[in-house]
Amino acid sequence: EIVAAIEGAMKAGPLTGRRILVTSGPTHEPIDPVRYIANRSSGAQGTAIAEALVAQGAEVVFVTGPADAARPRGVHLVEVQSAQEMMQAVQEALPVDAAVFSAAVADWRVASASDSKIKKTKQGLPKLEFAENPDILATVSQLQNGRPKLVVGFAAETDDVLANATAKRTRKGCDWIVANDVSPETGIMGGSENAVTLISEDGAESWPRMGKTEVAKILAERIAKAL
Amino acid sequence: EIVAAIEGAMKAGPLTGRRILVTSGPTHEPIDPVRYIANRSSGAQGTAIAEALVAQGAEVVFVTGPADAARPRGVHLVEVQSAQEMMQAVQEALPVDAAVFSAAVADWRVASASDSKIKKTKQGLPKLEFAENPDILATVSQLQNGRPKLVVGFAAETDDVLANATAKRTRKGCDWIVANDVSPETGIMGGSENAVTLISEDGAESWPRMGKTEVAKILAERIAKAL
Repeated sequence: EIVAAIEGAMKAGPLTGRRILVTSGPTHEPIDPVRYIANRSSGAQGTAIAEALVAQGAEVVFVTGPADAARPRGVHLVEVQSAQEMMQAVQEALPVDAAVFSAAVADWRVASASDSKIKKTKQGLPKLEFAENPDILATVSQLQNGRPKLVVGFAAETDDVLANATAKRTRKGCDWIVANDVSPETGIMGGSENAVTLISEDGAESWPRMGKTEVAKILAERIAKAL
Repeated sequence: EIVAAIEGAMKAGPLTGRRILVTSGPTHEPIDPVRYIANRSSGAQGTAIAEALVAQGAEVVFVTGPADAARPRGVHLVEVQSAQEMMQAVQEALPVDAAVFSAAVADWRVASASDSKIKKTKQGLPKLEFAENPDILATVSQLQNGRPKLVVGFAAETDDVLANATAKRTRKGCDWIVANDVSPETGIMGGSENAVTLISEDGAESWPRMGKTEVAKILAERIAKAL
């Protein structure tokens, strides 16, 4: 891995000398010592993006939740569990030239995770109180000082993909949104292919369905042009 | 896998001719198309038990949730996601001579999982309503017709292990409870070792901490004696 990291750092390309942050995978939000809330993100797209950026010469900081996907080669790897841990790792990774937030971060955590396993009781069902997690994409997009030149968010939607993703770009203040439809019938979440729409201030551009590696390669080339 | 299944079925031993059900792994309870509630069961102990029973000559039906552990060789494999699916698979596996319920089944599911991804809204945090899942151990333990001769439950506890597990045996109506302490500091959940206490009508018997393979072997021998 050290060798791979050096190879990555030494590769010459359009992104040589650029430092780029990539987040990837799901987050796990604890309920109690044995239970947690998860999501179906495999981390495959994030790993592919990191490797494509390394191939273009970038120095990549890769912050990942507990993803099934293999870790990318040639990156600075930071492993986290929860959204709060990911926020902290992202802040420690700054400053960067560009940030690609492909992780599927939980919007909510359980407000007070229990230190003991929650038992079935005669009172019946548990009451889970939720608290909002830090909004990593909005926080970094709206930095007054040290904002990355390019901030790319992801929008995994099941309905009204284009409208929801376009609104998300404005609301968060990021430069681009990579939007996709993660309805179970698409097979995208956990699968090897993706069908994305890139939303920028210039509008929406739908890419044909292709392998996640190919999506990553095109996105990395776009990032290289934009920086 | 076919060869392994045949090898298992043909192995002669004290459990030859016995059909045994083993459940294993966590269950995943959907919140919406991308989010779910999970637990930290790796399925390692269940896989080891199934393989130990096969080694003693048993025909094993192995019903597993989405576990990280490798699937056991030589079994009839049934893969499920949720507690409700596991209940159905268990009912379809009956009749059996013995049943070992080592799965970490979610006590609760989200009452009405959403067909669409739940969005952040101005109304704020989501309200998750829970419903009680079917109690697989109690249902099979209390069967009026076709109850397995031996029903073994598991109790993964973080507090008052012995008291909670002993009460569980009575409440569920099973014959044995294999109890263990899954507090994070024990490293048992997700680890390769286990420290269990076997609770039967004769009382509680604490086994020294040992590998999960060894726990499985001793348990399989006990089951062979009991049948």
